[in-house]
Amino acid sequence: MTPYKPKTRLFVDAGLTAGGGLEITEAQAYYLGHVMRLGTGDGVVLFNGRDGEWSAAIDSLAKKQGALTVEKLLRPQSAEPGPWLAFAPIKKASTDFIIEKATELGVSRLCPVFTKNTNTTRINPDRFRAHAIEAAERSQRLTVPEIMEPQTLDPLIAGWPPGRILLHLDESGGGRPIAEVLAGLRDQGGGEPSCGFLSGPEGGFDASELDALGKLDFVTGVDLGPRVLRADTAALSALACWQALLGGAAAKPVL
Amino acid sequence: MTPYKPKTRLFVDAGLTAGGGLEITEAQAYYLGHVMRLGTGDGVVLFNGRDGEWSAAIDSLAKKQGALTVEKLLRPQSAEPGPWLAFAPIKKASTDFIIEKATELGVSRLCPVFTKNTNTTRINPDRFRAHAIEAAERSQRLTVPEIMEPQTLDPLIAGWPPGRILLHLDESGGGRPIAEVLAGLRDQGGGEPSCGFLSGPEGGFDASELDALGKLDFVTGVDLGPRVLRADTAALSALACWQALLGGAAAKPVL
Repeated sequence: MTPYKPKTRLFVDAGLTAGGGLEITEAQAYYLGHVMRLGTGDGVVLFNGRDGEWSAAIDSLAKKQGALTVEKLLRPQSAEPGPWLAFAPIKKASTDFIIEKATELGVSRLCPVFTKNTNTTRINPDRFRAHAIEAAERSQRLTVPEIMEPQTLDPLIAGWPPGRILLHLDESGGGRPIAEVLAGLRDQGGGEPSCGFLSGPEGGFDASELDALGKLDFVTGVDLGPRVLRADTAALSALACWQALLGGAAAKPVL
Repeated sequence: MTPYKPKTRLFVDAGLTAGGGLEITEAQAYYLGHVMRLGTGDGVVLFNGRDGEWSAAIDSLAKKQGALTVEKLLRPQSAEPGPWLAFAPIKKASTDFIIEKATELGVSRLCPVFTKNTNTTRINPDRFRAHAIEAAERSQRLTVPEIMEPQTLDPLIAGWPPGRILLHLDESGGGRPIAEVLAGLRDQGGGEPSCGFLSGPEGGFDASELDALGKLDFVTGVDLGPRVLRADTAALSALACWQALLGGAAAKPVL
Protein backbone atom coordinates (compact mmCIF):
# COMPACT_ATOMS: atom_id res chain seq x y z
CA MET A 1 0.00 0.00 0.00
CA THR A 2 1.58 3.25 -1.13
CA PRO A 3 0.24 6.71 -0.47
CA TYR A 4 -0.66 6.91 -4.16
CA LYS A 5 -2.83 3.83 -4.51
CA PRO A 6 -4.34 3.28 -1.08
CA LYS A 7 -6.83 0.50 -0.68
CA THR A 8 -10.44 1.50 -0.33
CA ARG A 9 -10.99 2.59 3.26
CA LEU A 10 -14.30 2.55 5.09
CA PHE A 11 -15.24 4.09 8.40
CA VAL A 12 -17.65 1.79 10.25
CA ASP A 13 -19.48 1.97 13.57
CA ALA A 14 -19.10 -1.68 14.59
CA GLY A 15 -16.32 -3.04 16.76
CA LEU A 16 -13.36 -4.57 14.89
CA THR A 17 -11.63 -7.79 15.94
CA ALA A 18 -9.88 -10.51 13.92
CA GLY A 19 -12.40 -12.89 12.35
CA GLY A 20 -15.37 -10.67 13.19
CA GLY A 21 -18.23 -10.33 10.72
CA LEU A 22 -19.68 -6.99 9.74
CA GLU A 23 -22.64 -5.69 7.79
CA ILE A 24 -22.26 -2.45 5.90
CA THR A 25 -24.79 0.19 4.97
CA GLU A 26 -26.54 0.47 1.65
CA ALA A 27 -24.47 3.53 0.75
CA GLN A 28 -21.23 1.70 1.58
CA ALA A 29 -22.32 -1.34 -0.46
CA TYR A 30 -23.08 0.92 -3.41
CA TYR A 31 -19.73 2.66 -3.03
CA LEU A 32 -17.76 -0.60 -2.92
CA GLY A 33 -19.63 -2.28 -5.75
CA HIS A 34 -20.49 0.52 -8.13
CA VAL A 35 -17.95 3.26 -7.49
CA MET A 36 -14.88 1.19 -6.59
CA ARG A 37 -15.98 -1.86 -8.67
CA LEU A 38 -15.10 -4.33 -5.94
CA GLY A 39 -16.73 -7.74 -5.42
CA THR A 40 -16.67 -10.87 -3.30
CA GLY A 41 -13.16 -11.74 -2.12
CA ASP A 42 -11.75 -8.24 -2.66
CA GLY A 43 -10.00 -6.51 0.20
CA VAL A 44 -10.84 -3.25 1.92
CA VAL A 45 -9.49 -1.38 4.93
CA LEU A 46 -11.68 -0.56 7.93
CA PHE A 47 -11.43 1.79 10.90
CA ASN A 48 -13.90 2.86 13.53
CA GLY A 49 -12.00 5.43 15.56
CA ARG A 50 -11.50 3.02 18.47
CA ASP A 51 -9.98 -0.30 17.40
CA GLY A 52 -7.27 0.72 14.93
CA GLU A 53 -7.12 -0.03 11.23
CA TRP A 54 -7.92 -3.51 9.88
CA SER A 55 -7.89 -5.33 6.59
CA ALA A 56 -11.13 -7.05 5.68
CA ALA A 57 -12.50 -9.17 2.85
CA ILE A 58 -15.82 -8.75 1.10
CA ASP A 59 -17.98 -11.85 1.67
CA SER A 60 -20.97 -10.67 -0.31
CA LEU A 61 -22.12 -7.49 -1.96
CA ALA A 62 -25.72 -7.13 -3.01
CA LYS A 63 -27.47 -4.02 -4.22
CA LYS A 64 -28.57 -2.89 -0.79
CA GLN A 65 -26.26 -4.66 1.61
CA GLY A 66 -22.90 -6.25 2.04
CA ALA A 67 -21.01 -8.41 4.51
CA LEU A 68 -17.33 -8.29 5.35
CA THR A 69 -14.99 -10.38 7.45
CA VAL A 70 -12.37 -8.54 9.47
CA GLU A 71 -8.91 -10.04 8.99
CA LYS A 72 -5.73 -8.45 10.28
CA LEU A 73 -4.78 -5.42 12.36
CA LEU A 74 -2.83 -3.03 10.13
CA ARG A 75 -2.30 -0.13 12.53
CA PRO A 76 -3.14 0.00 16.23
CA GLN A 77 -5.38 2.83 17.34
CA SER A 78 -3.49 5.95 18.26
CA ALA A 79 -4.73 9.24 19.59
CA GLU A 80 -5.24 12.00 17.01
CA PRO A 81 -5.26 14.97 19.35
CA GLY A 82 -5.51 17.67 16.70
CA PRO A 83 -6.88 21.14 17.34
CA TRP A 84 -10.52 22.04 17.52
CA LEU A 85 -12.01 24.37 14.94
CA ALA A 86 -14.92 26.60 15.89
CA PHE A 87 -16.14 28.20 12.68
CA ALA A 88 -19.01 30.36 11.52
CA PRO A 89 -20.81 28.52 8.72
CA ILE A 90 -20.51 30.40 5.44
CA LYS A 91 -21.73 29.60 1.93
CA LYS A 92 -22.49 25.91 1.45
CA ALA A 93 -19.58 25.07 -0.85
CA SER A 94 -17.12 26.99 1.33
CA THR A 95 -18.38 25.32 4.50
CA ASP A 96 -18.06 21.88 2.89
CA PHE A 97 -14.57 22.90 1.92
CA ILE A 98 -13.70 23.87 5.50
CA ILE A 99 -14.92 20.50 6.79
CA GLU A 100 -13.01 18.53 4.17
CA LYS A 101 -9.75 20.43 4.54
CA ALA A 102 -9.94 20.63 8.34
CA THR A 103 -10.32 16.85 8.47
CA GLU A 104 -7.33 16.36 6.17
CA LEU A 105 -5.32 18.75 8.32
CA GLY A 106 -5.99 16.84 11.52
CA VAL A 107 -8.76 18.66 13.37
CA SER A 108 -10.26 16.58 16.17
CA ARG A 109 -13.47 18.54 16.72
CA LEU A 110 -15.57 20.85 14.54
CA CYS A 111 -17.84 23.34 16.31
CA PRO A 112 -20.21 25.30 14.05
CA VAL A 113 -20.89 28.66 15.70
CA PHE A 114 -23.48 31.25 14.76
CA THR A 115 -22.04 34.74 15.20
CA LYS A 116 -23.78 38.09 14.78
CA ASN A 117 -22.72 38.45 11.15
CA THR A 118 -23.37 34.83 10.19
CA ASN A 119 -25.83 34.79 7.29
CA THR A 120 -26.50 31.07 7.38
CA THR A 121 -29.20 30.19 9.89
CA ARG A 122 -29.59 26.45 9.37
CA ILE A 123 -27.00 23.77 9.00
CA ASN A 124 -27.13 20.01 8.87
CA PRO A 125 -24.58 18.39 11.21
CA ASP A 126 -25.29 14.98 9.61
CA ARG A 127 -24.16 16.32 6.25
CA PHE A 128 -21.06 17.76 7.88
CA ARG A 129 -20.38 14.37 9.42
CA ALA A 130 -20.72 12.60 6.05
CA HIS A 131 -18.14 14.99 4.56
CA ALA A 132 -15.80 14.48 7.49
CA ILE A 133 -16.05 10.69 7.20
CA GLU A 134 -15.24 10.80 3.50
CA ALA A 135 -12.22 13.04 4.10
CA ALA A 136 -11.05 10.85 7.00
CA GLU A 137 -11.29 7.72 4.85
CA ARG A 138 -9.30 9.31 2.05
CA SER A 139 -6.66 10.98 4.19
CA GLN A 140 -5.69 7.81 6.12
CA ARG A 141 -6.89 9.08 9.47
CA LEU A 142 -7.79 6.62 12.24
CA THR A 143 -10.49 8.87 13.65
CA VAL A 144 -13.25 11.09 12.32
CA PRO A 145 -13.49 14.60 13.79
CA GLU A 146 -16.36 15.03 16.19
CA ILE A 147 -19.07 17.32 14.78
CA MET A 148 -20.76 19.35 17.50
CA GLU A 149 -24.28 20.73 17.37
CA PRO A 150 -24.27 24.37 16.27
CA GLN A 151 -24.44 27.03 18.97
CA THR A 152 -24.06 30.77 19.26
CA LEU A 153 -20.82 32.39 20.36
CA ASP A 154 -21.78 33.04 24.00
CA PRO A 155 -22.45 29.41 24.98
CA LEU A 156 -19.46 28.25 22.95
CA ILE A 157 -17.24 30.57 24.97
CA ALA A 158 -18.98 29.77 28.26
CA GLY A 159 -18.51 26.04 27.70
CA TRP A 160 -14.95 26.22 26.42
CA PRO A 161 -12.75 23.93 28.55
CA PRO A 162 -10.26 25.70 30.78
CA GLY A 163 -6.74 24.97 29.63
CA ARG A 164 -7.55 24.74 25.94
CA ILE A 165 -6.12 27.85 24.30
CA LEU A 166 -8.45 29.50 21.77
CA LEU A 167 -6.69 31.20 18.87
CA HIS A 168 -8.98 33.73 17.31
CA LEU A 169 -8.27 34.47 13.62
CA ASP A 170 -8.17 38.21 14.02
CA GLU A 171 -8.71 40.28 10.87
CA SER A 172 -8.43 43.56 12.70
CA GLY A 173 -4.64 43.69 12.48
CA GLY A 174 -4.33 43.50 16.26
CA GLY A 175 -3.34 39.83 16.46
CA ARG A 176 0.13 38.38 17.00
CA PRO A 177 1.83 36.65 14.05
CA ILE A 178 0.50 33.10 13.93
CA ALA A 179 3.90 31.41 13.56
CA GLU A 180 5.14 33.23 16.67
CA VAL A 181 2.11 32.16 18.71
CA LEU A 182 2.29 28.52 17.57
CA ALA A 183 6.05 28.35 18.10
CA GLY A 184 5.46 29.70 21.62
CA LEU A 185 2.94 26.94 22.34
CA ARG A 186 5.33 24.35 20.95
CA ASP A 187 8.23 25.55 23.05
CA GLN A 188 6.26 25.49 26.30
CA GLY A 189 6.85 21.75 26.37
CA GLY A 190 4.66 19.45 28.43
CA GLY A 191 3.36 17.47 25.45
CA GLU A 192 1.17 18.59 22.61
CA PRO A 193 -0.75 21.68 23.79
CA SER A 194 -4.49 21.51 23.35
CA CYS A 195 -5.75 24.40 21.33
CA GLY A 196 -8.58 25.51 19.12
CA PHE A 197 -9.11 28.07 16.39
CA LEU A 198 -12.05 30.42 16.03
CA SER A 199 -12.87 31.50 12.50
CA GLY A 200 -15.49 34.12 11.68
CA PRO A 201 -18.09 34.60 8.96
CA GLU A 202 -17.66 36.47 5.65
CA GLY A 203 -18.52 39.77 7.33
CA GLY A 204 -16.11 39.26 10.22
CA PHE A 205 -16.90 39.42 13.90
CA ASP A 206 -19.05 42.20 15.27
CA ALA A 207 -17.28 44.85 17.37
CA SER A 208 -19.09 43.62 20.49
CA GLU A 209 -17.87 40.09 19.82
CA LEU A 210 -14.31 41.31 19.34
CA ASP A 211 -14.56 43.20 22.63
CA ALA A 212 -15.81 40.12 24.45
CA LEU A 213 -13.10 37.90 22.96
CA GLY A 214 -10.44 40.44 23.87
CA LYS A 215 -11.34 40.16 27.55
CA LEU A 216 -10.92 36.41 27.82
CA ASP A 217 -7.69 35.00 29.26
CA PHE A 218 -7.72 31.87 27.16
CA VAL A 219 -8.22 33.73 23.85
CA THR A 220 -5.27 34.98 21.78
CA GLY A 221 -5.79 36.90 18.54
CA VAL A 222 -3.55 35.65 15.74
CA ASP A 223 -2.62 37.51 12.58
CA LEU A 224 -2.49 35.77 9.20
CA GLY A 225 -0.87 38.53 7.20
CA PRO A 226 -1.58 41.79 5.43
CA ARG A 227 -4.05 40.56 2.84
CA VAL A 228 -7.77 40.13 3.40
CA LEU A 229 -8.43 36.39 3.39
CA ARG A 230 -11.76 34.73 2.74
CA ALA A 231 -13.17 32.98 5.79
CA ASP A 232 -12.36 29.53 4.43
CA THR A 233 -8.83 30.55 3.42
CA ALA A 234 -8.18 31.90 6.90
CA ALA A 235 -9.38 28.70 8.62
CA LEU A 236 -7.35 26.47 6.32
CA SER A 237 -4.23 28.64 6.63
CA ALA A 238 -4.32 28.52 10.40
CA LEU A 239 -4.71 24.74 10.43
CA ALA A 240 -1.89 24.30 7.91
CA CYS A 241 0.40 26.35 10.16
CA TRP A 242 -0.63 24.29 13.17
CA GLN A 243 0.13 21.10 11.25
CA ALA A 244 3.56 22.39 10.19
CA LEU A 245 4.63 23.79 13.55
CA LEU A 246 2.90 21.56 16.10
CA GLY A 247 1.31 18.62 14.30
CA GLY A 248 2.57 15.58 12.44
CA ALA A 249 4.58 17.65 9.95
CA ALA A 250 6.55 19.39 12.68
CA ALA A 251 10.27 18.84 12.74
CA LYS A 252 11.56 16.81 15.66
CA PRO A 253 13.62 17.90 17.48
CA VAL A 254 12.27 21.40 17.87
CA LEU A 255 13.44 23.86 15.19
CA MET B 1 -11.98 52.01 5.04
CA THR B 2 -11.78 49.07 7.40
CA PRO B 3 -10.77 45.55 6.47
CA TYR B 4 -14.39 44.52 6.96
CA LYS B 5 -16.09 46.95 4.59
CA PRO B 6 -13.52 47.69 1.92
CA LYS B 7 -14.51 49.91 -0.96
CA THR B 8 -15.10 48.27 -4.27
CA ARG B 9 -11.71 47.64 -5.87
CA LEU B 10 -11.06 47.28 -9.57
CA PHE B 11 -7.95 46.10 -11.36
CA VAL B 12 -7.45 48.10 -14.56
CA ASP B 13 -4.90 48.05 -17.37
CA ALA B 14 -4.62 51.80 -17.90
CA GLY B 15 -2.05 54.03 -16.23
CA LEU B 16 -3.19 55.83 -13.08
CA THR B 17 -2.38 59.48 -12.28
CA ALA B 18 -4.26 62.15 -10.37
CA GLY B 19 -7.00 63.67 -12.50
CA GLY B 20 -6.67 61.06 -15.22
CA GLY B 21 -9.76 59.77 -17.00
CA LEU B 22 -10.42 56.10 -17.51
CA GLU B 23 -12.87 53.92 -19.41
CA ILE B 24 -13.82 50.59 -17.94
CA THR B 25 -14.90 47.37 -19.58
CA GLU B 26 -18.48 46.23 -20.05
CA ALA B 27 -18.02 43.56 -17.37
CA GLN B 28 -16.64 46.13 -14.92
CA ALA B 29 -19.50 48.54 -15.66
CA TYR B 30 -21.98 45.73 -15.04
CA TYR B 31 -20.23 44.82 -11.82
CA LEU B 32 -20.21 48.39 -10.49
CA GLY B 33 -23.77 49.19 -11.50
CA HIS B 34 -25.65 45.93 -11.08
CA VAL B 35 -23.69 43.93 -8.54
CA MET B 36 -22.34 46.69 -6.30
CA ARG B 37 -25.26 49.09 -7.04
CA LEU B 38 -22.99 52.07 -7.51
CA GLY B 39 -23.72 55.10 -9.68
CA THR B 40 -22.41 58.48 -10.82
CA GLY B 41 -20.42 60.21 -8.09
CA ASP B 42 -19.72 57.06 -6.09
CA GLY B 43 -16.16 56.17 -5.19
CA VAL B 44 -14.15 53.11 -6.10
CA VAL B 45 -10.54 52.06 -5.61
CA LEU B 46 -8.26 51.25 -8.56
CA PHE B 47 -4.93 49.48 -8.99
CA ASN B 48 -3.04 48.32 -12.06
CA GLY B 49 -0.02 46.52 -10.61
CA ARG B 50 2.32 49.42 -11.47
CA ASP B 51 1.10 52.78 -10.18
CA GLY B 52 -0.13 51.99 -6.68
CA GLU B 53 -3.68 52.19 -5.37
CA TRP B 54 -5.91 55.17 -6.16
CA SER B 55 -9.33 56.44 -5.27
CA ALA B 56 -11.55 57.30 -8.20
CA ALA B 57 -15.05 58.63 -8.81
CA ILE B 58 -17.61 57.28 -11.23
CA ASP B 59 -18.41 59.91 -13.89
CA SER B 60 -20.91 57.84 -15.80
CA LEU B 61 -22.13 54.29 -15.83
CA ALA B 62 -24.14 53.04 -18.78
CA LYS B 63 -25.15 49.50 -19.55
CA LYS B 64 -22.08 48.70 -21.59
CA GLN B 65 -19.50 51.23 -20.50
CA GLY B 66 -18.38 53.52 -17.77
CA ALA B 67 -15.99 56.39 -17.18
CA LEU B 68 -14.04 57.16 -14.01
CA THR B 69 -11.82 60.00 -12.87
CA VAL B 70 -8.74 59.06 -10.86
CA GLU B 71 -8.44 61.15 -7.70
CA LYS B 72 -5.92 60.47 -4.96
CA LEU B 73 -3.06 58.05 -4.37
CA LEU B 74 -4.02 55.80 -1.44
CA ARG B 75 -1.01 53.47 -1.35
CA PRO B 76 2.19 53.74 -3.38
CA GLN B 77 3.11 50.70 -5.44
CA SER B 78 5.24 48.22 -3.55
CA ALA B 79 6.77 44.97 -4.67
CA GLU B 80 4.81 41.83 -3.88
CA PRO B 81 7.60 39.29 -4.25
CA GLY B 82 5.63 36.23 -3.18
CA PRO B 83 6.54 32.68 -4.13
CA TRP B 84 5.77 31.07 -7.44
CA LEU B 85 3.41 28.13 -7.59
CA ALA B 86 3.86 25.49 -10.29
CA PHE B 87 0.84 23.21 -10.10
CA ALA B 88 -0.67 20.35 -12.04
CA PRO B 89 -4.20 21.35 -13.04
CA ILE B 90 -6.76 19.10 -11.36
CA LYS B 91 -10.56 19.09 -11.42
CA LYS B 92 -12.02 22.43 -12.50
CA ALA B 93 -13.43 23.50 -9.14
CA SER B 94 -10.26 22.49 -7.30
CA THR B 95 -8.05 24.32 -9.80
CA ASP B 96 -10.17 27.45 -9.47
CA PHE B 97 -9.79 27.07 -5.76
CA ILE B 98 -5.99 26.85 -6.02
CA ILE B 99 -5.88 30.03 -8.09
CA GLU B 100 -8.14 31.95 -5.74
CA LYS B 101 -6.39 30.87 -2.54
CA ALA B 102 -2.89 31.20 -3.98
CA THR B 103 -3.67 34.79 -4.94
CA GLU B 104 -4.99 35.54 -1.46
CA LEU B 105 -1.87 33.98 0.04
CA GLY B 106 0.50 36.16 -1.96
CA VAL B 107 1.74 34.09 -4.90
CA SER B 108 3.45 36.21 -7.56
CA ARG B 109 3.38 33.72 -10.44
CA LEU B 110 1.20 30.73 -11.28
CA CYS B 111 2.67 28.10 -13.63
CA PRO B 112 0.24 25.38 -14.77
CA VAL B 113 2.27 22.24 -15.47
CA PHE B 114 1.15 19.04 -17.17
CA THR B 115 2.74 16.05 -15.45
CA LYS B 116 2.51 12.37 -16.45
CA ASN B 117 -0.45 11.69 -14.17
CA THR B 118 -2.30 14.92 -14.98
CA ASN B 119 -5.75 14.01 -16.28
CA THR B 120 -6.64 17.49 -17.47
CA THR B 121 -5.35 18.15 -20.97
CA ARG B 122 -6.73 21.61 -21.71
CA ILE B 123 -6.83 24.69 -19.57
CA ASN B 124 -7.79 28.27 -20.20
CA PRO B 125 -5.19 30.74 -18.88
CA ASP B 126 -7.60 33.64 -19.50
CA ARG B 127 -10.10 32.07 -17.12
CA PHE B 128 -7.32 31.57 -14.57
CA ARG B 129 -6.41 35.23 -14.97
CA ALA B 130 -10.00 36.36 -14.40
CA HIS B 131 -10.09 34.37 -11.15
CA ALA B 132 -6.76 35.78 -10.05
CA ILE B 133 -7.90 39.35 -10.74
CA GLU B 134 -11.06 38.87 -8.71
CA ALA B 135 -9.10 37.42 -5.79
CA ALA B 136 -6.51 40.22 -6.00
CA GLU B 137 -9.26 42.88 -5.96
CA ARG B 138 -10.90 41.31 -2.92
CA SER B 139 -7.74 40.57 -0.96
CA GLN B 140 -6.33 44.13 -1.16
CA ARG B 141 -3.31 43.16 -3.23
CA LEU B 142 -1.55 45.76 -5.37
CA THR B 143 -0.59 43.24 -8.05
CA VAL B 144 -2.20 40.32 -9.83
CA PRO B 145 -0.18 37.11 -10.03
CA GLU B 146 1.26 36.44 -13.45
CA ILE B 147 -0.39 33.44 -15.14
CA MET B 148 2.03 31.52 -17.35
CA GLU B 149 1.12 29.43 -20.37
CA PRO B 150 0.89 25.75 -19.44
CA GLN B 151 3.87 23.54 -20.13
CA THR B 152 5.06 20.05 -19.32
CA LEU B 153 7.42 19.33 -16.42
CA ASP B 154 10.64 19.05 -18.47
CA PRO B 155 10.60 22.56 -19.96
CA LEU B 156 9.37 24.00 -16.66
CA ILE B 157 12.41 22.53 -14.94
CA ALA B 158 14.76 23.42 -17.79
CA GLY B 159 13.60 27.04 -17.73
CA TRP B 160 13.53 27.43 -13.95
CA PRO B 161 15.72 30.42 -12.99
CA PRO B 162 18.92 29.56 -11.17
CA GLY B 163 18.78 30.85 -7.63
CA ARG B 164 15.05 30.32 -7.15
CA ILE B 165 14.63 27.37 -4.80
CA LEU B 166 11.91 24.94 -5.85
CA LEU B 167 10.13 23.22 -2.99
CA HIS B 168 8.50 20.06 -4.20
CA LEU B 169 5.47 18.94 -2.18
CA ASP B 170 6.64 15.39 -1.65
CA GLU B 171 3.97 12.81 -0.79
CA SER B 172 6.46 9.98 -0.65
CA GLY B 173 7.44 10.63 2.95
CA GLY B 174 11.01 11.45 1.94
CA GLY B 175 10.73 15.22 2.23
CA ARG B 176 11.98 17.43 5.06
CA PRO B 177 9.40 19.02 7.39
CA ILE B 178 8.14 22.14 5.67
CA ALA B 179 8.49 24.44 8.69
CA GLU B 180 12.14 23.41 9.06
CA VAL B 181 12.88 24.11 5.39
CA LEU B 182 11.11 27.49 5.40
CA ALA B 183 12.73 28.53 8.68
CA GLY B 184 16.08 27.63 7.13
CA LEU B 185 15.41 29.89 4.14
CA ARG B 186 14.30 32.66 6.44
CA ASP B 187 17.39 32.42 8.61
CA GLN B 188 19.79 32.56 5.66
CA GLY B 189 19.25 36.31 5.64
CA GLY B 190 20.00 38.38 2.57
CA GLY B 191 16.45 39.58 2.07
CA GLU B 192 13.38 37.61 1.15
CA PRO B 193 14.51 34.39 -0.57
CA SER B 194 12.93 33.71 -3.92
CA CYS B 195 11.26 30.35 -3.96
CA GLY B 196 8.58 28.36 -5.68
CA PHE B 197 6.42 25.37 -4.85
CA LEU B 198 5.69 22.42 -7.11
CA SER B 199 2.39 20.68 -6.51
CA GLY B 200 1.37 17.46 -8.28
CA PRO B 201 -1.87 16.06 -9.69
CA GLU B 202 -4.41 13.84 -7.90
CA GLY B 203 -2.42 10.72 -8.76
CA GLY B 204 0.89 12.16 -7.57
CA PHE B 205 4.10 12.40 -9.54
CA ASP B 206 5.31 9.46 -11.60
CA ALA B 207 8.35 7.58 -10.27
CA SER B 208 10.43 8.86 -13.20
CA GLU B 209 9.44 12.44 -12.36
CA LEU B 210 10.35 11.92 -8.70
CA ASP B 211 13.73 10.53 -9.76
CA ALA B 212 14.37 13.50 -12.03
CA LEU B 213 13.36 16.01 -9.34
CA GLY B 214 15.56 14.24 -6.79
CA LYS B 215 18.64 14.87 -8.91
CA LEU B 216 18.23 18.63 -9.17
CA ASP B 217 20.26 20.89 -6.88
CA PHE B 218 17.64 23.60 -6.65
CA VAL B 219 14.80 21.21 -5.72
CA THR B 220 14.05 20.31 -2.10
CA GLY B 221 11.30 17.86 -1.18
CA VAL B 222 9.11 19.10 1.66
CA ASP B 223 6.85 17.03 3.87
CA LEU B 224 3.39 18.23 4.89
CA GLY B 225 2.60 15.61 7.50
CA PRO B 226 1.42 12.05 7.93
CA ARG B 227 -1.99 12.33 6.33
CA VAL B 228 -2.71 12.06 2.61
CA LEU B 229 -3.71 15.53 1.45
CA ARG B 230 -5.70 16.35 -1.66
CA ALA B 231 -3.64 18.16 -4.27
CA ASP B 232 -5.35 21.48 -3.59
CA THR B 233 -5.02 21.10 0.19
CA ALA B 234 -1.30 20.44 -0.20
CA ALA B 235 -0.71 23.49 -2.40
CA LEU B 236 -2.60 25.80 -0.09
CA SER B 237 -1.03 24.40 3.06
CA ALA B 238 2.43 25.05 1.72
CA LEU B 239 1.56 28.62 0.76
CA ALA B 240 -0.02 29.27 4.17
CA CYS B 241 3.19 28.10 5.84
CA TRP B 242 5.25 30.33 3.56
CA GLN B 243 3.02 33.26 4.43
CA ALA B 244 3.35 32.59 8.17
CA LEU B 245 7.09 31.97 8.23
CA LEU B 246 8.46 34.16 5.43
CA GLY B 247 5.68 36.39 4.13
CA GLY B 248 3.71 39.30 5.49
CA ALA B 249 2.46 37.35 8.50
CA ALA B 250 5.95 36.49 9.65
CA ALA B 251 7.02 37.83 13.00
CA LYS B 252 9.68 40.49 12.91
CA PRO B 253 12.23 40.13 14.35
CA VAL B 254 12.90 36.54 13.51
CA LEU B 255 11.25 34.01 15.86
